[in-house]
Amino acid sequence: MAKVFGHIDGHPVGSHFPRRTELSEAGVHAPRMAGIHGNPREGADSIVVSGGYVDDEDHGNVIIYTGHGGRDSTTGRQTRDQVLTDSGNAGLVRSQLEGLLVRVIRGASGDPAHSPATGFRYDGLFRVESHSIKMGVDGFRICQFRMVAAEEAVAAEVPDDVEDVVPFHGDLPHQPVPTRTFTVQRSVRSSAVIQQVKQWHGGQCQLCGLALAVPGGSSYSEGAHIQALGRPHSGPDIIENVLCLCPNCHVLFDNGARYLTDALQVVDGLTHQEIAPLRTHPRHRIDLRYVRQHRERWIPEG
Amino acid sequence: MAKVFGHIDGHPVGSHFPRRTELSEAGVHAPRMAGIHGNPREGADSIVVSGGYVDDEDHGNVIIYTGHGGRDSTTGRQTRDQVLTDSGNAGLVRSQLEGLLVRVIRGASGDPAHSPATGFRYDGLFRVESHSIKMGVDGFRICQFRMVAAEEAVAAEVPDDVEDVVPFHGDLPHQPVPTRTFTVQRSVRSSAVIQQVKQWHGGQCQLCGLALAVPGGSSYSEGAHIQALGRPHSGPDIIENVLCLCPNCHVLFDNGARYLTDALQVVDGLTHQEIAPLRTHPRHRIDLRYVRQHRERWIPEG
Repeated sequence: MAKVFGHIDGHPVGSHFPRRTELSEAGVHAPRMAGIHGNPREGADSIVVSGGYVDDEDHGNVIIYTGHGGRDSTTGRQTRDQVLTDSGNAGLVRSQLEGLLVRVIRGASGDPAHSPATGFRYDGLFRVESHSIKMGVDGFRICQFRMVAAEEAVAAEVPDDVEDVVPFHGDLPHQPVPTRTFTVQRSVRSSAVIQQVKQWHGGQCQLCGLALAVPGGSSYSEGAHIQALGRPHSGPDIIENVLCLCPNCHVLFDNGARYLTDALQVVDGLTHQEIAPLRTHPRHRIDLRYVRQHRERWIPEG
Repeated sequence: MAKVFGHIDGHPVGSHFPRRTELSEAGVHAPRMAGIHGNPREGADSIVVSGGYVDDEDHGNVIIYTGHGGRDSTTGRQTRDQVLTDSGNAGLVRSQLEGLLVRVIRGASGDPAHSPATGFRYDGLFRVESHSIKMGVDGFRICQFRMVAAEEAVAAEVPDDVEDVVPFHGDLPHQPVPTRTFTVQRSVRSSAVIQQVKQWHGGQCQLCGLALAVPGGSSYSEGAHIQALGRPHSGPDIIENVLCLCPNCHVLFDNGARYLTDALQVVDGLTHQEIAPLRTHPRHRIDLRYVRQHRERWIPEG
């Protein structure tokens, strides 16, 4: 079944569904049995939180969600290990790596503090913040996903900007250190355009060739705009202006330590020596206007 | 002069200062002449925006700030190229890379729409989002910094989560793509603890040895918590729980593609083969409790 990310038209946050059948027909959570709608290639677009696993924790805006597999459907107990390569679990890993938002539906059998009295309720978009594997209460390994409400996630990070510092355990005789702690937002955008470019390149960095392999996920990469978005550059979010890069090359490219020639050779911005040709894909056309604008951010023409 | 990052006690946002002398004595902007208080080692903690450069743009919450150097103090015209290696400019690059927030003070001679009628006004903390070099109106190269109000920056990113998609320029016969575009927040924390660890390691990745060199900045690295912060892990922000990593190794470490043995050997989480010893520093003690907790997130003990 096709994955449809984001809200489903006509079914706003808070919508109620008497049974899984109606939930499925609405397209809010397509499968009638499985708790996760996902696969490693596309990611997961929705989950049902219904208290099926004793290791689940529901804190409202933060949910510790147990993955799929290894549970005896009759007794509800875990009888074997869960694995990240399970299709649903790998889908959630992919959603985490790509930053895809997941619809969360709560069922009446979940934590009473946060669940509907009957049936199922659509509770909005969550992002998968992290995952891990742990030994569940039944003595088998389970995959756990930390899901954070998408709106709440941003709000929760704001206070860090002015938080008082944690006691300082080192000493720096000649260098004072910042007296505040804060969160740096390395903003990594995603979009349909970026997803397409990443798919063509199989998550392989177009500058250095690296594909960061992660257990349960195929690979992690980032979409980089050649002509940056936002003032003063105002580049467009179109395929011809996007590269698939590893995080390291993304930092280098965004800060002038890498740029491209018109012949699409990768150049070291410190030595101005050519390093290698840009890796290309026959369907991925790159517009030289953006390449030139990026290069002239670091070597302006007089 | 020591750098003091963040608000200065007793001088809240909106505080007014008649002259640079009072601004300096208050510690809001220490130097009496220079527009940037910074150096490449510590970063920049404050700038004065006073319309000295014709290429400056003040949009309120976003400022395009021209760097230091090359200006004739009598005529106010640019007479030679600015360089990123200038101490103040390099300070702003370092603040960008480290996510250090910069106090912005506006003077009466700046853009009338956003500047005080007289003297100087402290206008709060901004982050340096990006920088570039361009040809200024006088025909010499200038360094420009995109400064974004720290609170506004977070708010501005929220709508992206539900923004409609940009027209899709590719096609995917067998794979539907997400129908929304959004911003992924790869949260990269910083703190006095992390600054200390990075300094000991000179920005060199403790897993792979790489130091990402960027023009005008010494190197870019990230602080990684071994036992993750936040539920369900709740690791502490202390030196014994922090590693200095390159962005690539940070992604690998946070997703179980790298973990450590008790003997501090780096292990590949896919093959479970040892790769190399962890790079250490004599003053950087790592607590094995955190190493074990992180490892057991991926290989739980029965």
